[in-house]
Amino acid sequence: MELSFKNILVVGLGLIGGSILKTIKELNIPLEVYGLDLHEEVTKEANKIGLINNFDNQLKKIEEDCLIIFSVPSLSFERAFKLIEGSFDDEKVIFTDTFSSKSKLLEFLEGNADIGEKFVMSHPIAGSEKSGLMNSLPFLFKDKLVLVSHLNSSSENNNVIKVKSFWEQLGSKVSIMDPVEHDKVLSKTSHLPHVISFALMHFLEKELGEKVFKYSGGSLESYTRIASSDPLMWKDVTVSNKEAVLEAIKGFKSSLNEVSKLIDSEDEESILDFLSFVKEVRDKQLFSDGTSWKASEEDS
Amino acid sequence: MELSFKNILVVGLGLIGGSILKTIKELNIPLEVYGLDLHEEVTKEANKIGLINNFDNQLKKIEEDCLIIFSVPSLSFERAFKLIEGSFDDEKVIFTDTFSSKSKLLEFLEGNADIGEKFVMSHPIAGSEKSGLMNSLPFLFKDKLVLVSHLNSSSENNNVIKVKSFWEQLGSKVSIMDPVEHDKVLSKTSHLPHVISFALMHFLEKELGEKVFKYSGGSLESYTRIASSDPLMWKDVTVSNKEAVLEAIKGFKSSLNEVSKLIDSEDEESILDFLSFVKEVRDKQLFSDGTSWKASEEDS
Repeated sequence: MELSFKNILVVGLGLIGGSILKTIKELNIPLEVYGLDLHEEVTKEANKIGLINNFDNQLKKIEEDCLIIFSVPSLSFERAFKLIEGSFDDEKVIFTDTFSSKSKLLEFLEGNADIGEKFVMSHPIAGSEKSGLMNSLPFLFKDKLVLVSHLNSSSENNNVIKVKSFWEQLGSKVSIMDPVEHDKVLSKTSHLPHVISFALMHFLEKELGEKVFKYSGGSLESYTRIASSDPLMWKDVTVSNKEAVLEAIKGFKSSLNEVSKLIDSEDEESILDFLSFVKEVRDKQLFSDGTSWKASEEDS
Repeated sequence: MELSFKNILVVGLGLIGGSILKTIKELNIPLEVYGLDLHEEVTKEANKIGLINNFDNQLKKIEEDCLIIFSVPSLSFERAFKLIEGSFDDEKVIFTDTFSSKSKLLEFLEGNADIGEKFVMSHPIAGSEKSGLMNSLPFLFKDKLVLVSHLNSSSENNNVIKVKSFWEQLGSKVSIMDPVEHDKVLSKTSHLPHVISFALMHFLEKELGEKVFKYSGGSLESYTRIASSDPLMWKDVTVSNKEAVLEAIKGFKSSLNEVSKLIDSEDEESILDFLSFVKEVRDKQLFSDGTSWKASEEDS
Protein backbone atom coordinates (compact mmCIF):
# COMPACT_ATOMS: atom_id res chain seq x y z
CA MET A 1 0.00 0.00 0.00
CA GLU A 2 1.38 3.38 -0.94
CA LEU A 3 1.46 6.24 1.51
CA SER A 4 -0.41 9.38 0.58
CA PHE A 5 2.36 11.70 1.79
CA LYS A 6 6.05 11.94 1.00
CA ASN A 7 7.24 13.71 4.15
CA ILE A 8 7.12 12.99 7.82
CA LEU A 9 8.02 15.30 10.66
CA VAL A 10 8.40 13.74 14.11
CA VAL A 11 8.17 16.23 16.97
CA GLY A 12 9.68 14.71 20.12
CA LEU A 13 12.59 12.35 19.49
CA GLY A 14 12.30 10.09 22.53
CA LEU A 15 11.61 6.39 22.72
CA ILE A 16 8.47 6.52 20.56
CA GLY A 17 9.54 9.24 18.11
CA GLY A 18 12.96 7.68 17.69
CA SER A 19 11.43 4.25 17.16
CA ILE A 20 9.12 5.58 14.46
CA LEU A 21 12.12 7.00 12.59
CA LYS A 22 14.20 3.85 13.06
CA THR A 23 11.34 1.69 11.78
CA ILE A 24 10.94 3.89 8.68
CA LYS A 25 14.66 3.54 8.02
CA GLU A 26 14.76 -0.19 8.72
CA LEU A 27 11.81 -0.90 6.44
CA ASN A 28 12.98 1.51 3.72
CA ILE A 29 9.64 3.29 3.73
CA PRO A 30 9.93 5.98 1.02
CA LEU A 31 9.55 9.10 3.15
CA GLU A 32 11.59 12.26 3.59
CA VAL A 33 12.22 12.30 7.32
CA TYR A 34 12.39 15.35 9.57
CA GLY A 35 12.51 15.69 13.30
CA LEU A 36 12.38 18.26 16.06
CA ASP A 37 12.88 17.98 19.77
CA LEU A 38 12.21 20.43 22.58
CA HIS A 39 15.87 19.88 23.46
CA GLU A 40 17.73 20.91 20.33
CA GLU A 41 20.75 18.73 21.14
CA VAL A 42 18.51 15.68 20.72
CA THR A 43 17.56 16.92 17.22
CA LYS A 44 21.25 17.24 16.39
CA GLU A 45 21.93 13.75 17.74
CA ALA A 46 19.10 12.27 15.64
CA ASN A 47 20.64 13.88 12.56
CA LYS A 48 24.06 12.61 13.48
CA ILE A 49 22.88 9.00 13.66
CA GLY A 50 21.15 9.37 10.30
CA LEU A 51 17.52 9.38 11.42
CA ILE A 52 16.45 12.80 10.08
CA ASN A 53 17.38 15.12 7.19
CA ASN A 54 17.51 18.38 9.18
CA PHE A 55 20.53 19.29 11.29
CA ASP A 56 18.84 21.20 14.10
CA ASN A 57 15.59 22.89 15.11
CA GLN A 58 15.91 25.43 12.24
CA LEU A 59 13.59 23.59 9.92
CA LYS A 60 12.77 25.04 6.52
CA LYS A 61 9.17 24.87 5.35
CA ILE A 62 8.07 21.44 4.06
CA GLU A 63 6.16 22.34 0.87
CA GLU A 64 4.68 18.95 0.05
CA ASP A 65 2.20 16.61 1.75
CA CYS A 66 3.38 15.92 5.26
CA LEU A 67 2.41 13.88 8.30
CA ILE A 68 3.42 15.60 11.53
CA ILE A 69 3.58 13.29 14.57
CA PHE A 70 3.71 14.67 18.11
CA SER A 71 5.47 12.23 20.37
CA VAL A 72 6.29 14.60 23.23
CA PRO A 73 4.92 14.15 26.77
CA SER A 74 1.26 15.06 26.39
CA LEU A 75 1.32 18.27 28.45
CA SER A 76 4.18 19.59 26.27
CA PHE A 77 1.93 19.53 23.23
CA GLU A 78 1.33 23.26 22.96
CA ARG A 79 5.05 24.02 23.32
CA ALA A 80 5.77 21.41 20.67
CA PHE A 81 3.15 22.91 18.39
CA LYS A 82 4.88 26.30 18.56
CA LEU A 83 8.07 24.60 17.42
CA ILE A 84 6.59 23.66 14.05
CA GLU A 85 4.99 26.96 13.17
CA GLY A 86 5.90 27.88 9.60
CA SER A 87 7.27 24.41 8.82
CA PHE A 88 4.33 23.08 6.82
CA ASP A 89 1.72 23.93 4.23
CA ASP A 90 -1.71 24.31 5.85
CA GLU A 91 -3.36 22.59 2.92
CA LYS A 92 -1.01 19.64 2.80
CA VAL A 93 -0.66 18.55 6.38
CA ILE A 94 -2.12 15.90 8.64
CA PHE A 95 -1.33 15.83 12.33
CA THR A 96 -1.21 12.91 14.66
CA ASP A 97 0.22 12.12 18.13
CA THR A 98 1.21 9.14 20.23
CA PHE A 99 -0.28 10.20 23.58
CA SER A 100 -1.52 7.67 26.10
CA SER A 101 -4.17 10.12 27.25
CA LYS A 102 -6.27 12.25 24.93
CA SER A 103 -8.28 14.51 27.27
CA LYS A 104 -6.07 17.63 27.24
CA LEU A 105 -5.32 17.26 23.53
CA LEU A 106 -9.02 16.94 22.87
CA GLU A 107 -9.72 20.20 24.75
CA PHE A 108 -7.10 21.95 22.63
CA LEU A 109 -8.45 20.56 19.35
CA GLU A 110 -12.02 21.46 20.20
CA GLY A 111 -10.84 25.02 20.85
CA ASN A 112 -8.81 25.10 17.63
CA ALA A 113 -11.14 23.66 15.01
CA ASP A 114 -8.77 24.44 12.10
CA ILE A 115 -6.12 22.18 13.63
CA GLY A 116 -8.69 19.70 14.94
CA GLU A 117 -9.96 19.19 11.40
CA LYS A 118 -6.53 17.93 10.32
CA PHE A 119 -5.75 16.02 13.49
CA VAL A 120 -6.12 12.27 13.80
CA MET A 121 -5.20 10.98 17.25
CA SER A 122 -3.05 7.87 17.62
CA HIS A 123 -2.03 5.79 20.59
CA PRO A 124 0.42 3.04 19.75
CA ILE A 125 0.22 0.53 22.61
CA ALA A 126 3.92 -0.14 22.53
CA GLY A 127 6.69 1.16 24.69
CA SER A 128 9.26 0.30 27.28
CA GLU A 129 10.20 1.37 30.75
CA LYS A 130 13.36 2.66 29.10
CA SER A 131 12.97 6.11 27.61
CA GLY A 132 14.85 8.44 25.32
CA LEU A 133 16.23 8.36 21.77
CA MET A 134 19.05 6.04 22.77
CA ASN A 135 16.60 3.34 23.80
CA SER A 136 14.42 3.63 20.70
CA LEU A 137 14.04 0.53 18.56
CA PRO A 138 13.22 -0.34 14.98
CA PHE A 139 10.21 -2.69 14.91
CA LEU A 140 8.88 -1.38 18.24
CA PHE A 141 5.44 -1.22 16.62
CA LYS A 142 5.49 -4.57 14.87
CA ASP A 143 2.32 -6.52 15.63
CA LYS A 144 1.29 -3.91 18.21
CA LEU A 145 -2.11 -2.31 18.49
CA VAL A 146 -2.57 1.38 17.62
CA LEU A 147 -5.78 3.04 18.79
CA VAL A 148 -6.76 5.75 16.33
CA SER A 149 -9.32 8.44 17.21
CA HIS A 150 -10.79 11.44 15.47
CA LEU A 151 -12.99 14.27 16.68
CA ASN A 152 -15.78 12.88 14.55
CA SER A 153 -14.84 9.28 15.24
CA SER A 154 -15.62 8.23 11.72
CA SER A 155 -13.44 5.63 10.08
CA GLU A 156 -14.72 7.03 6.75
CA ASN A 157 -12.70 10.18 7.26
CA ASN A 158 -9.97 10.41 4.68
CA ASN A 159 -7.32 11.57 7.12
CA VAL A 160 -8.14 8.67 9.42
CA ILE A 161 -7.57 6.29 6.53
CA LYS A 162 -4.19 7.89 5.80
CA VAL A 163 -2.99 7.72 9.40
CA LYS A 164 -4.27 4.15 9.74
CA SER A 165 -2.33 3.20 6.65
CA PHE A 166 0.82 4.83 8.06
CA TRP A 167 0.74 2.70 11.22
CA GLU A 168 0.03 -0.39 9.18
CA GLN A 169 3.16 0.35 7.15
CA LEU A 170 5.12 0.29 10.43
CA GLY A 171 3.71 -3.18 11.09
CA SER A 172 0.94 -2.29 13.53
CA LYS A 173 -2.71 -3.24 13.63
CA VAL A 174 -5.16 -0.35 13.99
CA SER A 175 -8.44 -0.08 15.90
CA ILE A 176 -10.61 3.01 15.59
CA MET A 177 -11.89 4.26 18.95
CA ASP A 178 -13.80 7.24 20.24
CA PRO A 179 -11.28 9.51 22.05
CA VAL A 180 -13.43 10.01 25.18
CA GLU A 181 -13.99 6.26 25.39
CA HIS A 182 -10.24 5.83 24.84
CA ASP A 183 -9.37 7.75 27.98
CA LYS A 184 -11.99 5.96 30.06
CA VAL A 185 -10.88 2.49 29.00
CA LEU A 186 -7.14 3.22 29.16
CA SER A 187 -7.49 4.79 32.62
CA LYS A 188 -8.44 1.30 33.75
CA THR A 189 -6.35 -0.99 31.58
CA SER A 190 -3.14 1.06 31.50
CA HIS A 191 -3.05 4.16 33.71
CA LEU A 192 -4.36 2.33 36.80
CA PRO A 193 -1.79 -0.51 36.59
CA HIS A 194 0.93 2.12 36.32
CA VAL A 195 -0.35 4.02 39.36
CA ILE A 196 -0.58 0.74 41.28
CA SER A 197 2.98 -0.09 40.33
CA PHE A 198 4.21 3.36 41.43
CA ALA A 199 2.42 2.99 44.77
CA LEU A 200 3.63 -0.59 45.28
CA MET A 201 7.24 0.36 44.60
CA HIS A 202 6.90 3.33 46.97
CA PHE A 203 5.50 1.10 49.70
CA LEU A 204 8.15 -1.62 49.22
CA GLU A 205 11.01 0.85 49.30
CA LYS A 206 9.64 2.39 52.50
CA GLU A 207 9.24 -1.01 54.16
CA LEU A 208 12.18 -3.01 52.87
CA GLY A 209 14.74 -0.60 51.47
CA GLU A 210 17.51 -2.51 49.80
CA LYS A 211 15.92 -5.87 50.53
CA VAL A 212 13.07 -5.34 48.07
CA PHE A 213 14.41 -7.57 45.32
CA LYS A 214 16.67 -9.67 47.48
CA TYR A 215 14.10 -12.25 48.50
CA SER A 216 11.59 -11.86 45.74
CA GLY A 217 12.76 -13.76 42.68
CA GLY A 218 12.05 -12.47 39.23
CA SER A 219 8.32 -12.00 39.38
CA LEU A 220 8.41 -8.84 41.49
CA GLU A 221 10.97 -7.42 39.10
CA SER A 222 8.57 -8.07 36.27
CA TYR A 223 5.57 -6.87 38.28
CA THR A 224 7.16 -3.54 39.16
CA ARG A 225 8.71 -3.03 35.71
CA ILE A 226 6.30 -0.25 34.77
CA ALA A 227 7.24 1.65 37.95
CA SER A 228 10.46 2.46 36.07
CA SER A 229 8.53 4.19 33.28
CA ASP A 230 9.39 7.74 32.23
CA PRO A 231 8.30 10.01 35.13
CA LEU A 232 7.67 13.02 32.87
CA MET A 233 5.45 11.08 30.52
CA TRP A 234 3.46 9.53 33.37
CA LYS A 235 3.15 12.78 35.28
CA ASP A 236 1.48 14.13 32.13
CA VAL A 237 -0.74 11.08 31.67
CA THR A 238 -2.04 11.15 35.24
CA VAL A 239 -2.63 14.90 35.21
CA SER A 240 -4.22 15.03 31.79
CA ASN A 241 -6.53 12.11 32.49
CA LYS A 242 -6.97 13.00 36.15
CA GLU A 243 -10.73 12.45 36.56
CA ALA A 244 -10.79 9.03 34.95
CA VAL A 245 -7.59 7.91 36.72
CA LEU A 246 -8.93 8.93 40.15
CA GLU A 247 -12.19 7.17 39.37
CA ALA A 248 -10.28 4.01 38.41
CA ILE A 249 -8.20 4.12 41.62
CA LYS A 250 -11.41 4.46 43.62
CA GLY A 251 -12.97 1.45 41.91
CA PHE A 252 -9.84 -0.63 42.34
CA LYS A 253 -9.70 0.25 46.04
CA SER A 254 -13.21 -1.00 46.43
CA SER A 255 -12.18 -4.36 44.94
CA LEU A 256 -9.09 -4.37 47.16
CA ASN A 257 -11.27 -3.75 50.22
CA GLU A 258 -13.46 -6.63 49.19
CA VAL A 259 -10.44 -8.97 49.11
CA SER A 260 -9.20 -7.60 52.45
CA LYS A 261 -12.56 -8.27 54.09
CA LEU A 262 -12.62 -11.80 52.72
CA ILE A 263 -9.12 -12.53 54.02
CA ASP A 264 -9.99 -11.00 57.37
CA SER A 265 -13.09 -13.17 57.61
CA GLU A 266 -11.06 -16.35 57.01
CA ASP A 267 -14.13 -17.60 55.20
CA GLU A 268 -12.18 -20.07 53.11
CA GLU A 269 -15.01 -21.02 50.80
CA SER A 270 -15.74 -17.39 49.86
CA ILE A 271 -12.04 -16.64 49.36
CA LEU A 272 -11.73 -19.67 47.12
CA ASP A 273 -14.82 -18.56 45.16
CA PHE A 274 -13.37 -15.08 44.69
CA LEU A 275 -9.95 -16.31 43.54
CA SER A 276 -11.51 -18.94 41.27
CA PHE A 277 -13.78 -16.32 39.71
CA VAL A 278 -10.83 -14.00 39.04
CA LYS A 279 -8.75 -16.78 37.51
CA GLU A 280 -11.62 -17.98 35.41
CA VAL A 281 -12.46 -14.59 33.89
CA ARG A 282 -8.81 -13.82 33.14
CA ASP A 283 -8.15 -17.17 31.52
CA LYS A 284 -11.40 -17.08 29.55
CA GLN A 285 -10.94 -13.55 28.28
CA LEU A 286 -7.33 -13.98 27.42
CA PHE A 287 -7.93 -16.98 25.26
CA SER A 288 -11.18 -15.89 23.69
CA ASP A 289 -10.62 -12.28 22.78
CA GLY A 290 -9.72 -13.16 19.23
CA THR A 291 -6.75 -10.82 19.03
CA SER A 292 -3.26 -12.11 18.58
CA TRP A 293 -1.58 -9.40 20.61
CA LYS A 294 0.63 -11.57 22.68
CA ALA A 295 2.25 -10.54 25.94
CA SER A 296 5.54 -8.80 25.64
CA GLU A 297 7.71 -7.59 28.47
CA GLU A 298 8.16 -4.33 26.62
CA ASP A 299 4.58 -3.17 26.07
CA SER A 300 3.14 -0.44 28.18
CA MET B 1 28.32 -33.14 46.05
CA GLU B 2 26.71 -36.33 47.24
CA LEU B 3 23.30 -36.35 48.84
CA SER B 4 23.04 -37.73 52.36
CA PHE B 5 19.85 -39.65 51.68
CA LYS B 6 18.91 -42.21 49.08
CA ASN B 7 15.15 -41.80 49.13
CA ILE B 8 12.77 -38.98 48.51
CA LEU B 9 9.05 -38.88 49.11
CA VAL B 10 7.11 -36.01 47.59
CA VAL B 11 3.71 -35.41 49.17
CA GLY B 12 1.55 -33.33 46.83
CA LEU B 13 2.14 -33.99 43.15
CA GLY B 14 1.14 -30.63 41.70
CA LEU B 15 3.21 -28.08 39.83
CA ILE B 16 5.96 -27.90 42.44
CA GLY B 17 6.01 -31.53 43.56
CA GLY B 18 5.84 -32.74 39.96
CA SER B 19 8.64 -30.39 38.94
CA ILE B 20 10.88 -31.66 41.76
CA LEU B 21 10.40 -35.23 40.51
CA LYS B 22 10.91 -34.27 36.86
CA THR B 23 14.10 -32.40 37.73
CA ILE B 24 15.45 -35.41 39.66
CA LYS B 25 14.72 -37.58 36.64
CA GLU B 26 16.11 -35.13 34.10
CA LEU B 27 19.34 -34.67 36.05
CA ASN B 28 19.70 -38.36 36.89
CA ILE B 29 20.03 -37.59 40.59
CA PRO B 30 20.56 -40.97 42.29
CA LEU B 31 17.44 -41.13 44.43
CA GLU B 32 14.68 -43.64 44.92
CA VAL B 33 11.56 -41.59 44.22
CA TYR B 34 8.19 -41.95 45.91
CA GLY B 35 5.13 -39.76 45.78
CA LEU B 36 1.73 -39.35 47.37
CA ASP B 37 -1.12 -37.07 46.55
CA LEU B 38 -4.29 -36.25 48.45
CA HIS B 39 -6.07 -37.32 45.26
CA GLU B 40 -4.92 -40.90 44.72
CA GLU B 41 -5.56 -40.78 40.96
CA VAL B 42 -2.77 -38.18 40.73
CA THR B 43 -0.40 -40.59 42.48
CA LYS B 44 -1.35 -43.25 39.94
CA GLU B 45 -0.81 -40.81 37.07
CA ALA B 46 2.66 -39.86 38.41
CA ASN B 47 3.57 -43.55 38.49
CA LYS B 48 2.22 -44.05 34.99
CA ILE B 49 4.44 -41.33 33.56
CA GLY B 50 7.46 -42.78 35.34
CA LEU B 51 7.99 -40.16 38.03
CA ILE B 52 7.60 -42.35 41.13
CA ASN B 53 8.22 -45.95 42.12
CA ASN B 54 4.98 -46.55 44.02
CA PHE B 55 1.73 -47.29 42.15
CA ASP B 56 -0.77 -45.66 44.48
CA ASN B 57 -1.19 -44.24 47.98
CA GLN B 58 -0.47 -47.65 49.58
CA LEU B 59 3.16 -46.91 50.31
CA LYS B 60 5.30 -49.47 52.09
CA LYS B 61 7.65 -48.23 54.77
CA ILE B 62 10.84 -46.59 53.49
CA GLU B 63 13.51 -48.14 55.72
CA GLU B 64 16.49 -46.01 54.70
CA ASP B 65 17.36 -42.30 54.98
CA CYS B 66 14.61 -40.27 53.40
CA LEU B 67 13.73 -36.67 52.61
CA ILE B 68 9.99 -36.07 52.74
CA ILE B 69 8.82 -32.93 50.94
CA PHE B 70 5.37 -31.48 51.49
CA SER B 71 4.24 -29.59 48.42
CA VAL B 72 0.53 -29.50 49.12
CA PRO B 73 -1.42 -26.24 49.64
CA SER B 74 -0.21 -25.07 53.04
CA LEU B 75 -3.49 -25.55 54.90
CA SER B 76 -3.61 -29.18 53.75
CA PHE B 77 -0.41 -29.92 55.63
CA GLU B 78 -1.96 -31.83 58.52
CA ARG B 79 -4.03 -33.98 56.15
CA ALA B 80 -0.90 -34.62 54.10
CA PHE B 81 1.04 -35.56 57.22
CA LYS B 82 -1.56 -38.24 58.07
CA LEU B 83 -0.99 -39.70 54.63
CA ILE B 84 2.63 -40.58 55.37
CA GLU B 85 2.16 -42.15 58.80
CA GLY B 86 4.05 -45.43 58.91
CA SER B 87 5.96 -44.73 55.70
CA PHE B 88 9.29 -43.74 57.19
CA ASP B 89 11.80 -44.52 59.90
CA ASP B 90 11.66 -41.85 62.63
CA GLU B 91 15.42 -41.94 63.00
CA LYS B 92 16.20 -41.61 59.31
CA VAL B 93 13.90 -38.87 58.10
CA ILE B 94 14.13 -35.18 57.34
CA PHE B 95 11.06 -33.17 56.45
CA THR B 96 10.77 -30.11 54.31
CA ASP B 97 8.02 -28.20 52.49
CA THR B 98 7.59 -25.73 49.65
CA PHE B 99 5.05 -23.38 51.24
CA SER B 100 4.93 -19.69 50.38
CA SER B 101 3.79 -18.90 53.91
CA LYS B 102 5.21 -20.48 57.04
CA SER B 103 3.00 -19.16 59.86
CA LYS B 104 0.55 -22.06 60.22
CA LEU B 105 3.27 -24.65 59.65
CA LEU B 106 5.34 -22.95 62.32
CA GLU B 107 2.48 -23.18 64.81
CA PHE B 108 2.19 -26.89 64.09
CA LEU B 109 5.92 -27.53 64.44
CA GLU B 110 6.13 -25.59 67.67
CA GLY B 111 3.33 -27.76 69.01
CA ASN B 112 4.98 -30.95 67.76
CA ALA B 113 8.61 -30.64 68.78
CA ASP B 114 9.52 -34.17 67.68
CA ILE B 115 8.53 -33.34 64.10
CA GLY B 116 9.83 -29.77 64.37
CA GLU B 117 13.26 -31.09 65.23
CA LYS B 118 13.47 -32.89 61.89
CA PHE B 119 11.74 -30.22 59.85
CA VAL B 120 13.63 -27.72 57.70
CA MET B 121 11.33 -25.29 55.92
CA SER B 122 11.89 -24.45 52.25
CA HIS B 123 10.33 -21.93 49.92
CA PRO B 124 11.48 -22.25 46.33
CA ILE B 125 10.71 -18.91 44.67
CA ALA B 126 9.71 -20.53 41.45
CA GLY B 127 6.34 -21.31 40.03
CA SER B 128 3.84 -20.55 37.37
CA GLU B 129 0.28 -19.38 37.10
CA LYS B 130 -0.33 -22.84 35.65
CA SER B 131 -0.87 -25.49 38.27
CA GLY B 132 -1.07 -29.26 38.51
CA LEU B 133 1.14 -32.22 37.63
CA MET B 134 0.52 -31.81 33.91
CA ASN B 135 2.11 -28.35 33.99
CA SER B 136 5.14 -29.35 36.04
CA LEU B 137 8.53 -28.82 34.46
CA PRO B 138 12.02 -30.20 34.77
CA PHE B 139 14.46 -27.38 35.52
CA LEU B 140 11.74 -25.24 37.17
CA PHE B 141 14.20 -24.55 39.99
CA LYS B 142 17.27 -23.86 37.90
CA ASP B 143 18.92 -20.61 39.00
CA LYS B 144 16.00 -19.87 41.31
CA LEU B 145 16.21 -18.77 44.90
CA VAL B 146 15.11 -21.12 47.69
CA LEU B 147 14.56 -19.59 51.13
CA VAL B 148 15.38 -22.15 53.79
CA SER B 149 14.28 -21.73 57.42
CA HIS B 150 14.57 -23.75 60.58
CA LEU B 151 13.01 -23.41 63.99
CA ASN B 152 16.42 -22.54 65.37
CA SER B 153 17.43 -20.60 62.28
CA SER B 154 20.96 -21.88 62.39
CA SER B 155 22.76 -22.65 59.20
CA GLU B 156 25.03 -24.89 61.29
CA ASN B 157 22.22 -27.36 61.76
CA ASN B 158 23.02 -30.61 60.00
CA ASN B 159 19.54 -31.04 58.59
CA VAL B 160 19.64 -27.51 57.19
CA ILE B 161 22.86 -28.36 55.38
CA LYS B 162 21.29 -31.50 53.91
CA VAL B 163 18.20 -29.70 52.67
CA LYS B 164 20.30 -26.84 51.30
CA SER B 165 22.43 -29.33 49.42
CA PHE B 166 19.30 -30.99 48.00
CA TRP B 167 18.04 -27.74 46.46
CA GLU B 168 21.48 -26.97 45.13
CA GLN B 169 21.44 -30.32 43.36
CA LEU B 170 18.24 -29.21 41.63
CA GLY B 171 20.09 -26.13 40.40
CA SER B 172 18.82 -23.58 42.93
CA LYS B 173 20.63 -21.07 45.08
CA VAL B 174 19.75 -21.14 48.78
CA SER B 175 19.41 -18.33 51.32
CA ILE B 176 18.84 -19.08 55.01
CA MET B 177 16.12 -16.94 56.54
CA ASP B 178 14.29 -16.74 59.83
CA PRO B 179 10.77 -18.16 59.25
CA VAL B 180 8.96 -15.29 61.00
CA GLU B 181 10.96 -12.78 58.98
CA HIS B 182 10.18 -14.87 55.88
CA ASP B 183 6.45 -14.38 56.27
CA LYS B 184 6.80 -10.67 56.94
CA VAL B 185 9.02 -10.04 53.93
CA LEU B 186 7.10 -12.30 51.57
CA SER B 187 3.78 -10.76 52.61
CA LYS B 188 5.12 -7.59 50.99
CA THR B 189 7.17 -8.84 48.06
CA SER B 190 4.95 -11.72 46.97
CA HIS B 191 1.60 -12.05 48.75
CA LEU B 192 0.71 -8.36 48.36
CA PRO B 193 1.39 -8.27 44.58
CA HIS B 194 -0.81 -11.34 44.23
CA VAL B 195 -3.63 -9.75 46.23
CA ILE B 196 -3.30 -6.58 44.14
CA SER B 197 -3.48 -8.62 40.97
CA PHE B 198 -6.61 -10.45 42.19
CA ALA B 199 -8.26 -7.14 43.07
CA LEU B 200 -7.22 -5.48 39.80
CA MET B 201 -8.59 -8.34 37.73
CA HIS B 202 -11.81 -8.28 39.75
CA PHE B 203 -12.18 -4.53 39.18
CA LEU B 204 -11.39 -4.74 35.44
CA GLU B 205 -13.85 -7.57 34.87
CA LYS B 206 -16.57 -5.62 36.67
CA GLU B 207 -15.89 -2.47 34.67
CA LEU B 208 -14.98 -3.74 31.24
CA GLY B 209 -16.16 -7.32 30.94
CA GLU B 210 -14.95 -8.81 27.69
CA LYS B 211 -13.10 -5.66 26.68
CA VAL B 212 -10.41 -6.03 29.38
CA PHE B 213 -7.68 -7.29 27.09
CA LYS B 214 -9.07 -5.91 23.87
CA TYR B 215 -7.47 -2.49 24.08
CA SER B 216 -4.61 -3.16 26.42
CA GLY B 217 -1.73 -4.72 24.52
CA GLY B 218 0.46 -7.30 26.16
CA SER B 219 1.50 -5.47 29.29
CA LEU B 220 -1.79 -5.91 31.13
CA GLU B 221 -1.70 -9.57 30.24
CA SER B 222 1.70 -9.78 31.85
CA TYR B 223 0.67 -7.57 34.78
CA THR B 224 -2.37 -9.68 35.64
CA ARG B 225 -0.62 -13.01 35.04
CA ILE B 226 -0.44 -13.87 38.74
CA ALA B 227 -4.22 -13.36 39.03
CA SER B 228 -4.44 -16.71 37.24
CA SER B 229 -2.50 -18.46 40.00
CA ASP B 230 -3.89 -21.54 41.71
CA PRO B 231 -6.89 -20.36 43.80
CA LEU B 232 -6.52 -23.13 46.37
CA MET B 233 -2.85 -22.39 46.98
CA TRP B 234 -3.46 -18.66 47.31
CA LYS B 235 -6.51 -19.08 49.53
CA ASP B 236 -4.19 -20.97 51.87
CA VAL B 237 -1.39 -18.40 51.62
CA THR B 238 -3.64 -15.45 52.41
CA VAL B 239 -5.37 -17.24 55.28
CA SER B 240 -2.24 -18.69 56.81
CA ASN B 241 -0.35 -15.39 56.61
CA LYS B 242 -3.44 -13.29 57.29
CA GLU B 243 -2.05 -10.73 59.76
CA ALA B 244 1.01 -9.85 57.68
CA VAL B 245 -0.96 -9.77 54.43
CA LEU B 246 -3.60 -7.43 55.86
CA GLU B 247 -0.83 -5.23 57.25
CA ALA B 248 0.83 -5.13 53.82
CA ILE B 249 -2.45 -4.21 52.10
CA LYS B 250 -2.93 -1.41 54.62
CA GLY B 251 0.54 -0.02 53.98
CA PHE B 252 0.13 -0.27 50.23
CA LYS B 253 -3.20 1.55 50.43
CA SER B 254 -1.50 4.35 52.26
CA SER B 255 1.02 4.71 49.40
CA LEU B 256 -1.83 4.52 46.91
CA ASN B 257 -3.67 7.28 48.76
CA GLU B 258 -0.53 9.38 48.61
CA VAL B 259 -0.38 9.01 44.81
CA SER B 260 -4.11 9.76 44.54
CA LYS B 261 -3.75 12.95 46.54
CA LEU B 262 -0.81 14.05 44.42
CA ILE B 263 -2.73 13.47 41.19
CA ASP B 264 -5.76 15.22 42.60
CA SER B 265 -3.62 18.23 43.54
CA GLU B 266 -2.27 18.52 39.97
CA ASP B 267 0.95 19.66 41.64
CA GLU B 268 3.09 18.64 38.71
CA GLU B 269 6.42 19.17 40.41
CA SER B 270 5.50 16.95 43.36
CA ILE B 271 4.08 14.27 41.07
CA LEU B 272 7.27 14.33 39.03
CA ASP B 273 9.34 14.07 42.22
CA PHE B 274 7.33 11.08 43.40
CA LEU B 275 7.55 9.22 40.09
CA SER B 276 11.25 10.02 39.74
CA PHE B 277 11.92 8.74 43.25
CA VAL B 278 10.08 5.50 42.56
CA LYS B 279 11.91 4.94 39.28
CA GLU B 280 15.25 5.76 40.84
CA VAL B 281 14.93 3.35 43.77
CA ARG B 282 13.71 0.54 41.55
CA ASP B 283 16.45 0.98 38.98
CA LYS B 284 19.12 1.39 41.64
CA GLN B 285 18.06 -1.64 43.68
CA LEU B 286 17.56 -3.85 40.71
CA PHE B 287 21.03 -3.28 39.38
CA SER B 288 22.88 -3.15 42.67
CA ASP B 289 21.48 -6.04 44.66
CA GLY B 290 24.29 -8.31 43.60
CA THR B 291 22.08 -11.29 42.91
CA SER B 292 21.79 -12.72 39.48
CA TRP B 293 18.19 -13.81 39.82
CA LYS B 294 16.92 -12.45 36.58
CA ALA B 295 13.28 -11.79 35.82
CA SER B 296 11.36 -14.67 34.47
CA GLU B 297 7.76 -14.61 33.40
CA GLU B 298 7.21 -17.82 35.28
CA ASP B 299 8.37 -16.96 38.77
CA SER B 300 5.90 -16.36 41.50
